[in-house]
Amino acid sequence: MTQSKSTPVPHLQLGSCDYPEHVPQDRWVPYAQQQKELGLSYVRIAEFAWSRMEPRPGEYDWAWLDTALDTYHAAGMRVVLCTPTPTPPAWLIRAHPEILPMDAQGRVREFGARRQYDFASPVYREHSRRITRAMAERYGTHPAVAGWQTDNEFGCHNTARSYGGASAEAFPGWLERKYGTLDALNTAWGNVFWSMEYTDWAQIKPPNLTVAEPNPSHVLDFYRFASAMIAEFQAEQVAILRELSPGRFVTHNFMIFETGFDHYEVAKGLDFVTWDNYPLGMLEFFAPPGSGEDVKTHFARTGQPDLIAFNHDLYRGLLGGKNALGRNGAGTPNGPWVMEQQCGQVNWAPFNPLPADGAVQLWTAQAWAHGADVVSYFRWRAATMAQEVMHSGLLRHDETPDRGFTEVAELDTTQFPVGEVSAKVAVLHDYDSLWLYDEQKHSANLSYWTQTLTYYMALRGLGVDVDVIHADADLSGYAVVVAPAITLVSKERAAHWTAAVQAGAKLVCGPRTAFRTPGGETWADGQFGPLSALVGAKLLQYDSLRPTLSQKIDGDGGQFEAHAWAESYRTQDAETLYTYAGGPLDGQSAVIRNGGVTVIGAHSEKLVGSVLTGVLADADVSMTPLPDGVRLSRRAGRTLLQNWNPDAVTWNGRRLEPVSFTVLENGNG
Amino acid sequence: MTQSKSTPVPHLQLGSCDYPEHVPQDRWVPYAQQQKELGLSYVRIAEFAWSRMEPRPGEYDWAWLDTALDTYHAAGMRVVLCTPTPTPPAWLIRAHPEILPMDAQGRVREFGARRQYDFASPVYREHSRRITRAMAERYGTHPAVAGWQTDNEFGCHNTARSYGGASAEAFPGWLERKYGTLDALNTAWGNVFWSMEYTDWAQIKPPNLTVAEPNPSHVLDFYRFASAMIAEFQAEQVAILRELSPGRFVTHNFMIFETGFDHYEVAKGLDFVTWDNYPLGMLEFFAPPGSGEDVKTHFARTGQPDLIAFNHDLYRGLLGGKNALGRNGAGTPNGPWVMEQQCGQVNWAPFNPLPADGAVQLWTAQAWAHGADVVSYFRWRAATMAQEVMHSGLLRHDETPDRGFTEVAELDTTQFPVGEVSAKVAVLHDYDSLWLYDEQKHSANLSYWTQTLTYYMALRGLGVDVDVIHADADLSGYAVVVAPAITLVSKERAAHWTAAVQAGAKLVCGPRTAFRTPGGETWADGQFGPLSALVGAKLLQYDSLRPTLSQKIDGDGGQFEAHAWAESYRTQDAETLYTYAGGPLDGQSAVIRNGGVTVIGAHSEKLVGSVLTGVLADADVSMTPLPDGVRLSRRAGRTLLQNWNPDAVTWNGRRLEPVSFTVLENGNG
Amino acid sequence: MTQSKSTPVPHLQLGSCDYPEHVPQDRWVPYAQQQKELGLSYVRIAEFAWSRMEPRPGEYDWAWLDTALDTYHAAGMRVVLCTPTPTPPAWLIRAHPEILPMDAQGRVREFGARRQYDFASPVYREHSRRITRAMAERYGTHPAVAGWQTDNEFGCHNTARSYGGASAEAFPGWLERKYGTLDALNTAWGNVFWSMEYTDWAQIKPPNLTVAEPNPSHVLDFYRFASAMIAEFQAEQVAILRELSPGRFVTHNFMIFETGFDHYEVAKGLDFVTWDNYPLGMLEFFAPPGSGEDVKTHFARTGQPDLIAFNHDLYRGLLGGKNALGRNGAGTPNGPWVMEQQCGQVNWAPFNPLPADGAVQLWTAQAWAHGADVVSYFRWRAATMAQEVMHSGLLRHDETPDRGFTEVAELDTTQFPVGEVSAKVAVLHDYDSLWLYDEQKHSANLSYWTQTLTYYMALRGLGVDVDVIHADADLSGYAVVVAPAITLVSKERAAHWTAAVQAGAKLVCGPRTAFRTPGGETWADGQFGPLSALVGAKLLQYDSLRPTLSQKIDGDGGQFEAHAWAESYRTQDAETLYTYAGGPLDGQSAVIRNGGVTVIGAHSEKLVGSVLTGVLADADVSMTPLPDGVRLSRRAGRTLLQNWNPDAVTWNGRRLEPVSFTVLENGNG
Ligand SMILES: [Zn+2]
Ligand SMILES: [Zn+2]
Ligand SMILES: [Zn+2]
Repeated sequence: MTQSKSTPVPHLQLGSCDYPEHVPQDRWVPYAQQQKELGLSYVRIAEFAWSRMEPRPGEYDWAWLDTALDTYHAAGMRVVLCTPTPTPPAWLIRAHPEILPMDAQGRVREFGARRQYDFASPVYREHSRRITRAMAERYGTHPAVAGWQTDNEFGCHNTARSYGGASAEAFPGWLERKYGTLDALNTAWGNVFWSMEYTDWAQIKPPNLTVAEPNPSHVLDFYRFASAMIAEFQAEQVAILRELSPGRFVTHNFMIFETGFDHYEVAKGLDFVTWDNYPLGMLEFFAPPGSGEDVKTHFARTGQPDLIAFNHDLYRGLLGGKNALGRNGAGTPNGPWVMEQQCGQVNWAPFNPLPADGAVQLWTAQAWAHGADVVSYFRWRAATMAQEVMHSGLLRHDETPDRGFTEVAELDTTQFPVGEVSAKVAVLHDYDSLWLYDEQKHSANLSYWTQTLTYYMALRGLGVDVDVIHADADLSGYAVVVAPAITLVSKERAAHWTAAVQAGAKLVCGPRTAFRTPGGETWADGQFGPLSALVGAKLLQYDSLRPTLSQKIDGDGGQFEAHAWAESYRTQDAETLYTYAGGPLDGQSAVIRNGGVTVIGAHSEKLVGSVLTGVLADADVSMTPLPDGVRLSRRAGRTLLQNWNPDAVTWNGRRLEPVSFTVLENGNG
Repeated sequence: MTQSKSTPVPHLQLGSCDYPEHVPQDRWVPYAQQQKELGLSYVRIAEFAWSRMEPRPGEYDWAWLDTALDTYHAAGMRVVLCTPTPTPPAWLIRAHPEILPMDAQGRVREFGARRQYDFASPVYREHSRRITRAMAERYGTHPAVAGWQTDNEFGCHNTARSYGGASAEAFPGWLERKYGTLDALNTAWGNVFWSMEYTDWAQIKPPNLTVAEPNPSHVLDFYRFASAMIAEFQAEQVAILRELSPGRFVTHNFMIFETGFDHYEVAKGLDFVTWDNYPLGMLEFFAPPGSGEDVKTHFARTGQPDLIAFNHDLYRGLLGGKNALGRNGAGTPNGPWVMEQQCGQVNWAPFNPLPADGAVQLWTAQAWAHGADVVSYFRWRAATMAQEVMHSGLLRHDETPDRGFTEVAELDTTQFPVGEVSAKVAVLHDYDSLWLYDEQKHSANLSYWTQTLTYYMALRGLGVDVDVIHADADLSGYAVVVAPAITLVSKERAAHWTAAVQAGAKLVCGPRTAFRTPGGETWADGQFGPLSALVGAKLLQYDSLRPTLSQKIDGDGGQFEAHAWAESYRTQDAETLYTYAGGPLDGQSAVIRNGGVTVIGAHSEKLVGSVLTGVLADADVSMTPLPDGVRLSRRAGRTLLQNWNPDAVTWNGRRLEPVSFTVLENGNG
Repeated sequence: MTQSKSTPVPHLQLGSCDYPEHVPQDRWVPYAQQQKELGLSYVRIAEFAWSRMEPRPGEYDWAWLDTALDTYHAAGMRVVLCTPTPTPPAWLIRAHPEILPMDAQGRVREFGARRQYDFASPVYREHSRRITRAMAERYGTHPAVAGWQTDNEFGCHNTARSYGGASAEAFPGWLERKYGTLDALNTAWGNVFWSMEYTDWAQIKPPNLTVAEPNPSHVLDFYRFASAMIAEFQAEQVAILRELSPGRFVTHNFMIFETGFDHYEVAKGLDFVTWDNYPLGMLEFFAPPGSGEDVKTHFARTGQPDLIAFNHDLYRGLLGGKNALGRNGAGTPNGPWVMEQQCGQVNWAPFNPLPADGAVQLWTAQAWAHGADVVSYFRWRAATMAQEVMHSGLLRHDETPDRGFTEVAELDTTQFPVGEVSAKVAVLHDYDSLWLYDEQKHSANLSYWTQTLTYYMALRGLGVDVDVIHADADLSGYAVVVAPAITLVSKERAAHWTAAVQAGAKLVCGPRTAFRTPGGETWADGQFGPLSALVGAKLLQYDSLRPTLSQKIDGDGGQFEAHAWAESYRTQDAETLYTYAGGPLDGQSAVIRNGGVTVIGAHSEKLVGSVLTGVLADADVSMTPLPDGVRLSRRAGRTLLQNWNPDAVTWNGRRLEPVSFTVLENGNG
């Protein structure tokens, strides 16, 4: 009988990331008790502690970890235990330097920080299984252990791909298993193009350091290969944990906007997904489309709400988008979790401001509203040593409670019941499309994320809840399906979407949709390839606009301006809703509609908002247009009304305090 | 009896670049027929097709190429056949990895794109000769073959120089042949400077990865060496083609503003020169002097006319500047050609806008007016695979005619008779000077091209036709000779210029003229070294102006402002035309004249324009001052009046439509 | 009896850097005579002449150097002779390529420029001692030789550290000698953090190419190690020179703002310190805090006076700050010297303007006022070959006197008596703190120099003389001690400062003071660690402000704005002088005082100026607030009044000509 099946989970629970190995042992009991008193239920530990578990090859030291687990258990804390594979110790690396990955510049990436391994390394795989088994044998049924986290933040520090060593050795074999013959590979990649045809599998290397840019099909398969290596690496750990730690969940903490691997593939086999939410660092690195220093400044101390929300919705959807209690036993949180939640300043952005008063509570509330069952703060106490001394924790370096601690102490989590997030609108996402899109952007200011977030933010600005789901996911139940940047559309995908439209869903597509084949070529019959019949049109022109150029668009909804991208269509069955005015596209179709399908050819925030409004209205999806920085998110019959602005806002006759939220019952605002 | 001597060439002819190996064989016949119907005469093929000609070592497959040539022939198309050496196949590279070049960072440049070879590689030279001979033996006298293109775009992707491998091995020997003794080399390079004297030839390496910047003389000779390797590489192919393909021309397609080798050296031995004209990509990468985002925006869909014109004039002049019919037999186009002409969007600039309506016709007309006998569009059909899927062709991916096709179809080429371009003004150019200038710029915003284009654009703005010729070329027949940036002036060059001035030519020199010796040092008696007597002055000071500084200049023509650079002179025989006012150069000579020689010490677009106007007037060269974006070019007794502006312009009482041209008989505007 | 003890030095003396090996021998006599006639006393030679002293291994050629020394001696010039170790010749490098250093990207740094050696190389150490001994044996007692310069500009071109080869081999041994056991090292570095614990000394490498950022403690010790290698390298030369060249001084010429090694450690064992002063290049590379293009433009032709002054004060203080005549025998200049003084345009900045009229004289006067005994111009004649042809000299390429020559000829050095610089205010400096600060900036726009210069410039703007001294230096005699950025405070350092405060000094600290331990961790009891009792407060929060954010501060002195950084305090014994207003720090302490200690938590030029004014007034330090570009510096009972502005300024009823100075007796302005 394990504890992990015993506690009901009626509302959001909290946790933190703790590192007992970083502090003297006399701090362990008071820390665990203080965590419990603060209202935390979970503590995540040990992901970087390999050198303490196995100080020398084969010499395990479990005593300290036994004590740590018993201490948390005694305090009533439930532990998420991690496999320590993000940090192979020095003795392992120096004995087997072939574990080290290689960067795209051909340099071995060295020991001295973390993630210094190649996922394809058979030597490292063996040690990964060995340490996982050793931990699972010892702690698989420990009553403190609620579940497991595999490794930590796959792909962080650009580590998803290794361009040499083990990965370079494994890549040809993976290709041979995929394609069978070199003729098949050469054809699929279009290798005739620049005489790049291979006559031996061993001739194929990773697509780096090529004289000019590599073949995008070569790149696409290398990215798929690297992703598969991560999935395999994790699956080996999961299998051992399933065997030796029954009744415990297994998860992984994914990273913000990480693009180095196919998250859907890697999420398979996990019980639920968690992610690491750093809103302020995210804003410095991922500005929303159309925004610049003004947006970064306005939201400098809260983060931009839609960027955060997108990640919540993305990670909630990795395993199907329908989280519910009970998959791991009654009362077990099923995720998604925020495994690491910023609770003070971070240390890794160019600028690392303090969060605004109330931001930690707001982030926590938003996480709940977007489906999180647990929010776990990073980290318990600020580190006094090494790389992250400038990063905050709930406790300061001197162990006094920091700003985040106070906000957590004052937060009433009973207002956050768990339950379903129910969205009528789906935004489609696909890592293959992302890779192809960004490999050949054609317009330096346009990217897959920019294009996708343009649509997502427009929907959020209309007060609509959104699921972010895989482009091949089940579409039943969605009134509106949006494909902002799904450039790769196979025949199967086209058939899948067609069926959804025939079943009554409205489909909205962005530019470049169905431009590319699964192999990464263009459809020889041109965009929209196998989707042409559904769209009722063909591509006419595409125009990459330099930042100082724009393109006017006219239609019933008014006049708009495109920037970065404008493409036009030759309509067959489709009707034209908007037309380009002036320039080389003058008079050509900008937005077209064929029954339930609308295609928006121009990159334009306002046009997208206008067209989506019409489609949502047609689909009877309720909208609540919202001012900047005000957002609505709904879960379990409640509505979270949020003000992310640094100033108070009056909305709908209600005064919203700066950086604040309100939970409404069945609220519509 | 070959076809290449049979057709008269009364006017501009057209062509395109086609890749039969990229499409199913059932497309070949319709493509060839459609080309002919469009009015194309030439088709360039096979430059990247090695892996299809020789799929495995020594196993040739000519069947497809036989069929392709016969197909073109049957359709009445004339073929430019290419040696496929830009793309050695995988089997060759993996068998001989020593063929691969090394970049300046010491990284081997890998297979997977194109141009993955070191020009100095003896192994690759052997294979280059072998495949050239095999092709020439099979097709040297094929009736479809009009001529040959060697390789493709030497130097593209920064491949002119390899900093390791075969080049590193060959460099010392080349130096030994040049200098004979190490004493001579150490003296010529000034190696005593930082104790860099060599005592063994084998001690000498390429000038990369040095702790501080390398010796500019070392760099200069390495650049010359790399250039010589390209010339040798090509000469080996040319010799074989001459032997086996009599009566056919041999050419090469040079790149826009490529600076990796001495084009004059590499052009030697060719029948005529061709180049690849991508006006929009050019503008994004090579902004004209003094211009910024405004110019890039104004000309975003046409390209900046003078940048394009400069390349036309440069390439026309590589083999002497006097193109004329008949060097290859009566009726054969003698070039220059535009071998690749953008006819839609390109894919390789940060932003890749569509051309304006009319731009493809305007580019074609301009090419003619600047001496082109053939314009060949890149490419017939847009590629559906690999690196260039975002690049346009005359046909779209789906084989429908794209914008460029329509413009070509509507173009009347009979208005473009071939004949001489006759210029009274020469702009001098020299790759040694370019390399020295840019190796030690002294002012980050100044470059050889910027300095040279300042003079060239001033001349074009005065409606004057210009030859761009080598600094040592025959100067007879020129009323005005301009040396904007010829910093290397040997005693021989000084004598050559002196003779021209004595013969009555006006010489105008920019700053730094005759500052450097052929070895790359400065003249020990200071600027103007051996040109001092002709100039009648010595250098006094040079001032590198940061962008926020300028320098006033006063003279009879008014007041001007220098930026980036200002140098002053101690006059001996020379008179002072302009004087600096204020700053450390206050009262010093800015522009001086000594008989037929004028030196302009300041970098200033307006001053240059003003002084050139005076010199041209003195030389009785007719001028037609033109507004921005309006240009005149003359050939074969006709004048091409061009409006490159996106708006209509009224000029000389005549309305010029946006992006348009008019051919005038004996026109003066 | 050597000449070096015979000449009294009543006032500033002048010199230049000459390179007889660069010019024909017939120039030597006239150059030496011309130098003497110009009023120069010193000539520095031979630092790059190894290939001429030893053209082949073991074959010494002294004849030319004998002649050169005799020539200078005959002309009455005194020689500073250099060891030629910055430029090991080709024969040595090719015979022992293991001498070459490796950059942080893992690339061997190649022969072909200068400084191509690893300080830790035992092979190179041996050759360094050998050539030093050979020179010293031959010239140690030559009557022309006044003293020696070791090598040249340690650290220039980022050469202080080598990340491979000999340094990588030596690093573990150095650590073992420092720590004794791996447990001690692992604890000191906090290696448990990411499982970075070592089990063998040989596992430890330089901290480069790590997957993520390396451990800052690892970095800190690597920087200390590299610094120690330089100190050892020089000490070996110094020992030989002391043995063989009695009565001669030994010095080294340090570089502007160089941060690659601990200058205090490397200066030990020298007689005095010299440095190389390039005010215009300095300004392009080291803009003062809060300034941008406007400051760079305003001072483009003079340099920013405080940047230059800071370097003078820094280098004067390396050996204790109390220069005085006689340490090397009566009449010998004791330094500091300016060994290389810009006297025309330099060649190494992005833009290299000419100095203003009068700038060379102003720089010379300022050098004197800040303690220099000798100013030596770089270089005698502009080089006609190799890397530095664009650099000016006193003579032009053509041997005519350049602008600087004229200014030197007109300068009366008798107005510059030698004597003490006497400052009541000390600014503390420490390379360990610098390294830690900049390794984890937390705010991209903040650096150790920016923070330090903010305080230094505020003091100079108040007309106060400043000593820049080591954080552990003797503090007696200072009324005010300023620690702008001393983030590393050991218990010993805390005790030292506490004693100074108790003795009556006022201490002013900037943010992050006493945040870090000597190992590079944070104090586990939080900032201010061992200084907490003295400060009477603890750190509350720190806030890294992005450039578009600022933070208001209120207090008796008015309202100010912080940018880049704001930290707040929990006061215990301290009182609060300024409070933050608004934002997350609202109401928290910004500036606090506890008796003689004031801490300023915010980065704000104006707040710093205001608080310093109050502290100086309290300490009875006389102030003279000065307008921008006007400065006062005092030495030997005289005051140098300087106007660095390009325009005349009226100050204190006195008209100050542009770029000019006046020497006042006992002047207070
Ligand atoms: Zn993390
Ligand atoms: Zn091309
Ligand atoms: Zn120097």
